Amino acid sequence: MKVSKFGGSSVSDAKQIKKVLDIVNEDPERKIIIVSAPGKRHKDDIKTTDLLIRLYEKIQNNLDYQSKKKEIIQRYADIVNGLNMDDAILTTIDETLELYIEQLSDKPPRLYDALLSCGENFNAQLIAIFNNSQGTPTRYVSPKEACLIVTDLPQQAQILDSSYTDIYKLRNYKEKLIIPGFFGVSQQNYIVTFPRGGSDITGAIIARSVRASLYENFTDVSGIYKANPNIINHPELIEEITYREMRELSYAGFSVFHDEALQPLYKDRIPVVIKNTNRPNDKGTYILHDREIDSNKVISGISCDKGFTVINIKKYLMNRIVGFTTKILGVLEEFNISFDHIPSGIDNISIIMRTNQINGKESQVLNEIRKRCKVDELSIDNDLAILMIVGEGMNQVVGTASKITHALSESNINLIMINQGASEISMMFGIREEDAEKAVLSTYEFCYHGVCLKNLCQ
Amino acid sequence: MKVSKFGGSSVSDAKQIKKVLDIVNEDPERKIIIVSAPGKRHKDDIKTTDLLIRLYEKIQNNLDYQSKKKEIIQRYADIVNGLNMDDAILTTIDETLELYIEQLSDKPPRLYDALLSCGENFNAQLIAIFNNSQGTPTRYVSPKEACLIVTDLPQQAQILDSSYTDIYKLRNYKEKLIIPGFFGVSQQNYIVTFPRGGSDITGAIIARSVRASLYENFTDVSGIYKANPNIINHPELIEEITYREMRELSYAGFSVFHDEALQPLYKDRIPVVIKNTNRPNDKGTYILHDREIDSNKVISGISCDKGFTVINIKKYLMNRIVGFTTKILGVLEEFNISFDHIPSGIDNISIIMRTNQINGKESQVLNEIRKRCKVDELSIDNDLAILMIVGEGMNQVVGTASKITHALSESNINLIMINQGASEISMMFGIREEDAEKAVLSTYEFCYHGVCLKNLCQ
Repeated sequence: MKVSKFGGSSVSDAKQIKKVLDIVNEDPERKIIIVSAPGKRHKDDIKTTDLLIRLYEKIQNNLDYQSKKKEIIQRYADIVNGLNMDDAILTTIDETLELYIEQLSDKPPRLYDALLSCGENFNAQLIAIFNNSQGTPTRYVSPKEACLIVTDLPQQAQILDSSYTDIYKLRNYKEKLIIPGFFGVSQQNYIVTFPRGGSDITGAIIARSVRASLYENFTDVSGIYKANPNIINHPELIEEITYREMRELSYAGFSVFHDEALQPLYKDRIPVVIKNTNRPNDKGTYILHDREIDSNKVISGISCDKGFTVINIKKYLMNRIVGFTTKILGVLEEFNISFDHIPSGIDNISIIMRTNQINGKESQVLNEIRKRCKVDELSIDNDLAILMIVGEGMNQVVGTASKITHALSESNINLIMINQGASEISMMFGIREEDAEKAVLSTYEFCYHGVCLKNLCQ
Repeated sequence: MKVSKFGGSSVSDAKQIKKVLDIVNEDPERKIIIVSAPGKRHKDDIKTTDLLIRLYEKIQNNLDYQSKKKEIIQRYADIVNGLNMDDAILTTIDETLELYIEQLSDKPPRLYDALLSCGENFNAQLIAIFNNSQGTPTRYVSPKEACLIVTDLPQQAQILDSSYTDIYKLRNYKEKLIIPGFFGVSQQNYIVTFPRGGSDITGAIIARSVRASLYENFTDVSGIYKANPNIINHPELIEEITYREMRELSYAGFSVFHDEALQPLYKDRIPVVIKNTNRPNDKGTYILHDREIDSNKVISGISCDKGFTVINIKKYLMNRIVGFTTKILGVLEEFNISFDHIPSGIDNISIIMRTNQINGKESQVLNEIRKRCKVDELSIDNDLAILMIVGEGMNQVVGTASKITHALSESNINLIMINQGASEISMMFGIREEDAEKAVLSTYEFCYHGVCLKNLCQ
């Protein structure tokens, strides 16, 4: 049994939904379908979820919300018309929105979650009704019926461990099941949305629960690129990648499949494939627990993310002072700052974190470190990007670091930091933000095509 | 005013002592002379200090110690005869040894320190008497008279801050002063030896106290080599190096001048020169607070030390768990293990320490980490060497990392770890112990001579 999830652009209008159902109906293994809210139909379109956020804001500010509500209903009306369906469902949609607004207007965080859930929820109902009418027994299953029981904190849903067993019962249904992504229901009977990764998480939880043979994640690209297509012209696609590689790439900006959604899949080793709704015969990218390693092609992907900050601390004879590092980390903990890496020298240590972790608290944090740790020198630098080169088996192959540093050096990129060692499958380089694109370009071309971008980058 | 310290081989016999005094008497700025105990006269000789340790062991084991004592006195008798001196001093030496043995045999740690101090102390007295008799007003000054007042814990002497002011008064003497290195006197009036670096520390403390214009450290090499001469055939000498560079090189095995001895000099920026007693006109190596940087020659030295251990920890979604690192470091602190570096990935962290820190506690520590931190995977590796490439301004020059990783890769050396970033003046590479010599050789040849050791190392 496969669990198939379709993203916003795959279910944005009648035409796309027909493509989705062709894919679904073609394969009897595709039994459980997770759908997103209707996404953008063209570049300047607005996602249904964003319309729902605007509706919520109108209500919160006591403004007239009727026209915004109509705009939302119109999205579904377009789909209903495009599919030649009975438009009775539009009345249900209208009534449901009004019901939430009436019942929950005194509980804003609950109203927010309930309204946002509508995007996926209405779409799932619609698609189920339509597919059933076309002759394939199909059934809408609400997250509550599916036993997607989550924690109660608004917008922070976490699946309860007990749910995994209960959701397994979805296997008993005979029909194809259409389930809305992005939210669950708490034991207190509230709708609660997932924090990040939305529908991907719903799909992952269900795929694990029903022990799916494959979790298909349909989107509008034919898989995961080896590097950011905004930087590299038509980069190659990754054929197979491990969960761990995916995690490392996600860390530095890869966002095709949210790494939060990998967590439920990891333990039971459920394989994932990223596929393209518009080109369903393309192979896609498989995300697996293990994969065979070709020692001639050890680098799976290259990512680079901006927005990092580094605090540099110097203290003569630092390595003689027991507990010095713990003392510094203690200061960060007090300010609730989570750091990422702590490269160290003999008399110095650096702490690397996301800039958003320390924004606004910089001078306080530095003062506290200065006061408590009696440092010789202290500086902060907000201009850091992290370049991540990822590949299973990379540390088995002599010369990988040499290749990458050569490519960067030829492009005249200064290395502020190198962090290699803890992870066997990645190397991390700290560079200036302004060098980020150049770094991806030069390492990509050199590592995959042996092309040295010396002239380009001078 | 210069403070000049002479190491064990420089004062090992009459001939060497004459060389030392020629150097001392030739320059009126050389006013304060620190001397070591007589060192080895030839490869198979035994240092006086080691003879004194054996004497102590005989006494401790209630064995007859007379012949060992005679052996020690004979070392000084050889010097006395070689210098045609009155041998009355040999009686004083004998009596002093017997006095310590009598007075301190119920306090073994005190006896140990007192006996060991004799090596330097007798030599200083002897040399002072001789030089004075040759017409240069010269005076022996004991550490007590010099106000070298230290903490009272045996073998762990630390200078008291107040001593620096008192020692300044040595400037008032008119004669040349000969002071024994390696020990001070506590406020409880016990002789206490320095933990490490011995006479270098005495010299450094005195150089700082009297605000010396230069601290000369005479030994049997003409300075500090750019790499270990046991690995590189006739390596080049370093002309100038900063305190910070010296610290980093010392960390990974450079031991010409002990980095503990740099501490007193650092704050007042007293320059040090390492010179050769046997070739006093050689320029030597200057250790300075700052130096000019030649961007074409950024690498000052290459060192490599074995005996490191790495603990590798994997935990999926580690970077989401606040305080995870602190928890692990807490375990190490409880076992009183001081670690050196903590390179980290996304889902993994490594802890690097000297193997002697964890020897014998390995399984306990691993169990405790496993128990408290619920890790996915945990491994330990005792086979790590640290290669340290040091140079001020290194991080300003693009391509340094590329050069080094290229050299290592061509010699087929796998990089277990790269730690660069916190220190601006060094890069640290973790390699297998068996690759240590090869790594020094290939980086030395490539970085200094542009020679690639590909064929040599295949």
